[in-house]
Amino acid sequence: MPRFEKIEYKPIPVSELLLEMKNLSELMIDLAYSAALFNDKELAEDVIELEERVDTLAYLLDMEIMIAARDAEDAESLIGVSTVAAATDKISDAAADIAAIVTQNIGVHPIVSSIFEQVEERLIKSTVKEGSELAGKRIDELDLAAEMGLDIIAIRRNKDWFINPKGNERLLHGDVVITRGAPHGIKDFKDFAEGIPSKVEG
Amino acid sequence: MPRFEKIEYKPIPVSELLLEMKNLSELMIDLAYSAALFNDKELAEDVIELEERVDTLAYLLDMEIMIAARDAEDAESLIGVSTVAAATDKISDAAADIAAIVTQNIGVHPIVSSIFEQVEERLIKSTVKEGSELAGKRIDELDLAAEMGLDIIAIRRNKDWFINPKGNERLLHGDVVITRGAPHGIKDFKDFAEGIPSKVEG
Repeated sequence: MPRFEKIEYKPIPVSELLLEMKNLSELMIDLAYSAALFNDKELAEDVIELEERVDTLAYLLDMEIMIAARDAEDAESLIGVSTVAAATDKISDAAADIAAIVTQNIGVHPIVSSIFEQVEERLIKSTVKEGSELAGKRIDELDLAAEMGLDIIAIRRNKDWFINPKGNERLLHGDVVITRGAPHGIKDFKDFAEGIPSKVEG
Repeated sequence: MPRFEKIEYKPIPVSELLLEMKNLSELMIDLAYSAALFNDKELAEDVIELEERVDTLAYLLDMEIMIAARDAEDAESLIGVSTVAAATDKISDAAADIAAIVTQNIGVHPIVSSIFEQVEERLIKSTVKEGSELAGKRIDELDLAAEMGLDIIAIRRNKDWFINPKGNERLLHGDVVITRGAPHGIKDFKDFAEGIPSKVEG
């Protein structure tokens, strides 16, 4: 199956590709466990989608490395880079395997849930709806850690993912926000993001 | 190569095996990246050792699952457990691949280091030496987060690993402690654990 037929080669720095692969693979593990624990299909589907993105990045990175290596010495020094990239790819595959339990309705066995009993935090996905008070706000203005005991760990804006966004990032209408925190805090945040607008009429 | 020849079957609950695999695989990823970034052979060797432990756990878990599954229905319900276990095993393999860059002297390319530039925290390994002020103290007595901006993420005591130890756990002479924090904080901690005892004579 030609999985990569639509990938166009664009020169992107290897460090940028590798950093994105690392960040995505770590996010995917968190998302996958949370999806399995709460049987959350939406999160699971995000993981599957991200796995394709990591595959694409891996492909682009392999190309960049080949182009960069002019001789045996270059190649030798780049082996470490290629190994780390392959490892992040393997991690993202593992996350997708976990997510597939949810998307394929295999069902989450109580044993799987039991290993999370000690985990007090969960991940949730919210969309910043039109009229939400969150739209246009900077993350640090919201003071989420203090107010609701939670963190924004990723934002998806159209096709782009921003992992561990900085405090000066503004939330925009339409953003999909992945939040980590105590169950009641993240539920409040979801209501806040998606609830009926309180300050906007019409 | 008969990797498992020395493993003796002991009945251990599947949930316990799975939880340990999950915790170890996550710790290994952190250790492996830190080992690669700081070219830290000791940390890398721990990762390789832990990978063997995860393999052993995977083997024991497969046995337990086989024993538990009496019919097709059992087997079907256990597929999810086996999938999560296999995923943690894959993650631990990926961590070991990264660690091998360090143990095999492949060398860490600046590109690999560059992806950690944004990471301000690192992991370090310290041994609680005889006469150290840490020996016998409870973790919460040390108030490490406030005093030094760091956390103890794991303790190895002989062959056992305690991941994310609780505050009421006491550090003992001979414990190997993995700490995460800002570079200066964890260096101070290491000196504290391993330095010349200040309050004990002889």
